[in-house]
Amino acid sequence: MIYFDNAATSGVKPSQVISAISNALEKYSANPGRSGHALSFEASHQVYSAREKLDSFFNGYGSEFVSFTSNCTEALNIAIKGVLKGGDHVVISCLEHNSVVRPIYKLQKEIGVEYSIFDVYEDEMKTLRSFESSFRKNTKLCVVTAVSNVFGTILPLASLSAIAHSRGALFFVDGAQAAGVIPVDMKNQGIDCLCVPGHKGLLGPMGIGAIIHNNLDFTTIIEGGTGTASFDYSQPSGYPERLESGTLNVPGICGLSAGIDWVNDYTCHRIFNKETALAKSVSDGLSLMKNVILYGDLPHGKHHAPVISFNVKGLHSEQVSLKLNDGGVAVRGGYHCAGLSHRFMGTEATGTVRVSPSVFNSEKDVNILLNLVENIAF
Amino acid sequence: MIYFDNAATSGVKPSQVISAISNALEKYSANPGRSGHALSFEASHQVYSAREKLDSFFNGYGSEFVSFTSNCTEALNIAIKGVLKGGDHVVISCLEHNSVVRPIYKLQKEIGVEYSIFDVYEDEMKTLRSFESSFRKNTKLCVVTAVSNVFGTILPLASLSAIAHSRGALFFVDGAQAAGVIPVDMKNQGIDCLCVPGHKGLLGPMGIGAIIHNNLDFTTIIEGGTGTASFDYSQPSGYPERLESGTLNVPGICGLSAGIDWVNDYTCHRIFNKETALAKSVSDGLSLMKNVILYGDLPHGKHHAPVISFNVKGLHSEQVSLKLNDGGVAVRGGYHCAGLSHRFMGTEATGTVRVSPSVFNSEKDVNILLNLVENIAF
Repeated sequence: MIYFDNAATSGVKPSQVISAISNALEKYSANPGRSGHALSFEASHQVYSAREKLDSFFNGYGSEFVSFTSNCTEALNIAIKGVLKGGDHVVISCLEHNSVVRPIYKLQKEIGVEYSIFDVYEDEMKTLRSFESSFRKNTKLCVVTAVSNVFGTILPLASLSAIAHSRGALFFVDGAQAAGVIPVDMKNQGIDCLCVPGHKGLLGPMGIGAIIHNNLDFTTIIEGGTGTASFDYSQPSGYPERLESGTLNVPGICGLSAGIDWVNDYTCHRIFNKETALAKSVSDGLSLMKNVILYGDLPHGKHHAPVISFNVKGLHSEQVSLKLNDGGVAVRGGYHCAGLSHRFMGTEATGTVRVSPSVFNSEKDVNILLNLVENIAF
Repeated sequence: MIYFDNAATSGVKPSQVISAISNALEKYSANPGRSGHALSFEASHQVYSAREKLDSFFNGYGSEFVSFTSNCTEALNIAIKGVLKGGDHVVISCLEHNSVVRPIYKLQKEIGVEYSIFDVYEDEMKTLRSFESSFRKNTKLCVVTAVSNVFGTILPLASLSAIAHSRGALFFVDGAQAAGVIPVDMKNQGIDCLCVPGHKGLLGPMGIGAIIHNNLDFTTIIEGGTGTASFDYSQPSGYPERLESGTLNVPGICGLSAGIDWVNDYTCHRIFNKETALAKSVSDGLSLMKNVILYGDLPHGKHHAPVISFNVKGLHSEQVSLKLNDGGVAVRGGYHCAGLSHRFMGTEATGTVRVSPSVFNSEKDVNILLNLVENIAF
């Protein structure tokens, strides 16, 4: 099967990732930070090393401010609910995933948090004006995706964060599609909190993610054993423990760590270039087919990450993706957990067919995909 | 290294577990329930199969009422915060872990939830009287561990749940130490919600747990993409999705599934008997050493799971565990994230040395441990 659904999870995990996980299960299956024996220390060492890699990869604020989560969604919930209180206002983009929209909508219903949505345009100045006009006196937070998971649009994080900070608001980023594909630099882009999955561009396994922040004073949504201060019934205030209750996913963390090593060796830059070249071949090919509708900017390297959405006239996106599956190609049709994005793009009726190549795909894969679409769209 | 820290995480994972995880990473690294292609379907099938196994293993209320979490602590947070509101009263045992105590303490501080603690005795009738006298008019919930993670005490779940239900309260169980070691039968023991880790007695990897319930109307603490109803900004109400936001830990679920298969093949009964025999050898040996203090009932199969806590007079438990580590034996010293238990047992000053054998340990391992303790306690 040719796998073009890497925006959902990366289909090929490097062999180092798989062996790191097996190794963790065989060699130091012990609970880190819980016991004083050698195996527990080894597990702790691996976890600490992974924290350092993530901190360094995203130019964060110190490895103690990297906490592991089960996925990017949990990280976003911890981040958003960790700072918003009743009466606060939050600004989000029109391209947010339900991992941002649903927690905020819940806070609106339950404690009266308010939110505004700004529009994203090809013209960056227009985007920034829309963003700026969304602020209110009580704006506490902005949550912005680095890359649209449906259309691949890259948002101008540094410019947005400068505006947010000038208004006294925190600037949080959903790095779900960006991590490991486009450079994300927390200090230089002014990101106060970054939430990432481990299993997409960072090439780790499903089941691991992280919240990385600038020593923010988060209230917690999950409390429990941390291996520290056992007699204190309050959650410990120190990081990373404050946001890490219960046993950590050590095999997942080891796999993620090996994935980051792979990305560092290959370099994010080369990954982006290779995936963008493949995405460009996809969009170039699709743009020649008269019954195909392409959405968003074409991938040209500045405002577009390697995620392509299209439709075939007269067909629902899920019909197209099923036909592609029958032809041996895995893509995702439907709404991609991002109703907001489809409302913005006017694709509520059909959703879109999403093609998300990885560095492990080839031009041959693209040709097979294009031939199949041509037959479907004929 | 001889590993006697299985109450923290099981040190030996069956080879089937490790190969199930590798297989998931190599063969169907695709997001379940998100896309319509064959690899995503295969991942969904594996997840569904694991739900069915958990439901059947614990005699639950249907596989749709099994939701996966990252660990038992997350499951307990979801369960406890999913039903308690300001003004509600909750009853917990004196042997609860911080995964129960800390979420409840947070609810007390933030929304005025009240709690009472009942004492646990060797005499079951005394335990039940203490439990019953803890109820108030506004008691909504009881949360009880099936097995003390420090002392191995088994709580009389069926009798406790009968009382809870007669008082109109829900009965939730922390199955952290019980799952895969002692039989837990939700329907026959009257358990409304059971929270379990995958990485202890069920022999799966760290990073996976589950909440299993009787179609309860939980409010959520985490919302996000579920692969369903993308245009709805509210979290979907259907189970299992309501409690599963973001990408699931598919490799972890596959590993847990293989772990359950292993336990089913070997049988929980034989695991309990083997581990209890080993624990009995440990406690018999320790009871002959005059400078050793043993806590809790000795393991005789009725009120005691295979977890032993002891101390050496004049030494802190962590000193003893470090000496054992130097001798090549891994145990856990300290407080085990359960301050409440130590307050009850009067072991606040020293904590305890905890020995938790698994089915993969042998009498030879026990002898090595006992020889080391004898030298330390001499």
